[in-house]
Order: sequence, then structure tokens, then C-alpha cells
Amino acid sequence: MENRKQTIEEFAAELSSKAPVPGGGGTSALAGALGNALGQMVANLTIGKKKYAAVEDEIKEILKDLEIRQSHFLKLADEDAAVFTPLAAAYGLPSQTDEEKEYKAQVMEKNLLEASRVPMEIMREAAETLKLMEILGEKGSRLAVSDVGVGVQLLRAALTGAVMNVYINTKSMKNRDKAEELNREADSLLEEGTRKADEIYETVRKGLKG
Amino acid sequence: MENRKQTIEEFAAELSSKAPVPGGGGTSALAGALGNALGQMVANLTIGKKKYAAVEDEIKEILKDLEIRQSHFLKLADEDAAVFTPLAAAYGLPSQTDEEKEYKAQVMEKNLLEASRVPMEIMREAAETLKLMEILGEKGSRLAVSDVGVGVQLLRAALTGAVMNVYINTKSMKNRDKAEELNREADSLLEEGTRKADEIYETVRKGLKG
Repeated sequence: MENRKQTIEEFAAELSSKAPVPGGGGTSALAGALGNALGQMVANLTIGKKKYAAVEDEIKEILKDLEIRQSHFLKLADEDAAVFTPLAAAYGLPSQTDEEKEYKAQVMEKNLLEASRVPMEIMREAAETLKLMEILGEKGSRLAVSDVGVGVQLLRAALTGAVMNVYINTKSMKNRDKAEELNREADSLLEEGTRKADEIYETVRKGLKG
Repeated sequence: MENRKQTIEEFAAELSSKAPVPGGGGTSALAGALGNALGQMVANLTIGKKKYAAVEDEIKEILKDLEIRQSHFLKLADEDAAVFTPLAAAYGLPSQTDEEKEYKAQVMEKNLLEASRVPMEIMREAAETLKLMEILGEKGSRLAVSDVGVGVQLLRAALTGAVMNVYINTKSMKNRDKAEELNREADSLLEEGTRKADEIYETVRKGLKG
């Protein structure tokens, strides 16, 4: 069943079980979706308000962008589960003869690459969404600024969570150049994204605490 | 409708809307529930495995504890929405005469206290759950260690998210001693909890990246 069609209670129960999916990858995508949704909430609370008329067009563009990224986050949660089955099957292939070994290595490599693509896309989406959150934090309704703060923390969790699944898959890849390239991109998204999230969050927190 | 009975898609859509609830508070509770669920997954992947027989009893106790805290997280998500209605109503009370002013101040104070209680409980639950995650990270199945990493980041988001709702409500409280006391507890849970989450996460990350 697609995660997005499950109730929260059902998803939490499946996540708790020892079944391999949903796991950390799908949860990271979901964290991204929740952070994104809070951004949309802030945009929706800003649009149509006289006080924010000067930024209304910009906020409307951000909302449209967030909506597209939201459906991507929800799709990625399901994709994370979908790429697991062929990878688990590849791990189970026989590897007695040289021919079998070579075939298994080929299938493994292909599936590891695909399994690292999904968390990498979660990270890219989270990083792009953080840029939109930054603008919402500066120009969006002051009444909803705390939701920007909560939202960036969920996007931060999407980044820090998804990078784990990049590492797990690149670790077993035979093509070390490709593996290092993926790790470098992931580390850079992680570093830049968490720094941005922390900056936005601290600004919101100081403003709220007074 | 209770959040836990909604599908993920429905919850995300409601969260995105300009309706005041669900908002950052409910999302923080949900982040806690997702982090907790990943902890349960790690426990379930450890229990029954020969390799971890020596710690099985301890892990079973942790699982029981996580299950109780999980139902509390899901309950707190709904409570966060439930305390909003009377608080919004209190903001709308008339305040022309001295009598009206005094009555409004009393009702406001009571509802602000209740509205800060919910995020404070989310923070306490997240802090306690992090302690269990620390043990799972040390003694749980090595195959699921990345899920400990993702889980602690979601619990971190629960802490950093919920503290916003503590600040918002304590800020308007007339009883400044009580407000400061609540802020102090929140800040201490925040500082200690994020430090612990970051420590556990870095240990997991270094182990995975190799």
C-alpha cells in the first residue's frame, strides 16, 4: 500500500515493525513532506492579507513551487520502499561460480545506484525547500513565523535522515568513483542545508522568545 | 477528526491549509511518534536474534517503554489541536469594562497555561525517548543502526519544534514567574536533548560512512 494512503496510526505501526520498509528512508521523505506542508500553511496565511499585499505575488509563486515539491516528497516515500525489494533480491542471488558472482555484482551495483538515488533526491528537495522557507521566514505572515521554525527543523531531519541511506548504499558499491561522487554531493547538501536550517531557526527562536 | 485516523495525504493537506490546526505543535508530536516508531523497529529487529541474546531482556523493556510513549505522542498530537479552540475563544472575549477585562485575563491565563502544557509534554517525551535511543544505538542490531540515526533526528525535530509553542504561550502569560519557570524547563530540555541527539547521530554517521 502506498504510504500516503495509510492512516498515521497505520504508518507508525508498520514503521515500528521489523519489516524492512517503511524505514528510515521513507520517514525522511515524510519529514520533508511535513516541513513543506508547514511552509504552504505559512504561504496560505500570508496570501490575501492587506498587510502583505506587496509580497503577495512572490508568495504565490513560492506556494506553487512548494505544491510541486510536496507531491515529489510523497512520491519519494513510496519509491524508497519500491527500490528495496529488487535490492534485497539481489543480495540473495547465488554466488558460487564465477559467472554467478559476476552476474550478482552487476545486479547489485545497478540496484545500489537506484537505492541511493532516492535518498539523494529527498536531500535535493529538502535543500530547495529550505531556500523557500528562508523567504517565507523573512516575508511571510509574522503570525505564522513559528511554523517556519518547526518546518525548517523537519526539513533538516529529512536531510540528516536521508543521508544515512545514501551512505548505506554507496558503501557497498564497487564503482568507488561514483560512490565518492555521490557521498560528496550528499555531504555538501547536508552541510549547507543544516547550516541554513539552523540559521533560519535561530532567527525565529530569538524573535519569539523576545 | 483525530490526526492519527487521517491518511498521511489528508494530514499533509490539512497542515498546508490556513486552518490554525493542525500546525507546528501537532507536527512536533508527530515527529516524535515517527522517531519513536523507528526506535521500536530497531528493538524488534534485535529481539529474537541469537547474536543479541545477552541484551534481549533489556531491549524488551525498552520496547515496552517505547510503546507506552508512542501512544502518548499520538494523543498529544490531538491534544495540541484540542487546546487551541478554547484559547482562540478566550482571545475573542470582550474587554471593554474592567469586569470584562479581568474575566478575560483570567480565562486567557488558564488557557495559555494549558496550551503550553502540551508542547512541554511533547518535549519531555522526546527527551525520555532519546535516552532509550541511546541504549538502542549502543546495544541494538548493527543492521538497523541507521534507523537509530534517523530516529534521533526526528526526536530532535520534536524538541526544536515543540519549544516554539512553549514560547508563544508563555510570552502572553501574566504570571511571569510561572512563564519563566516553563521557559527554563523548555530551554534545558532543548539544550540537553539536541546535544544528546547530535552525539548519537554523529556516532552512527561515522560508523556508517566508514
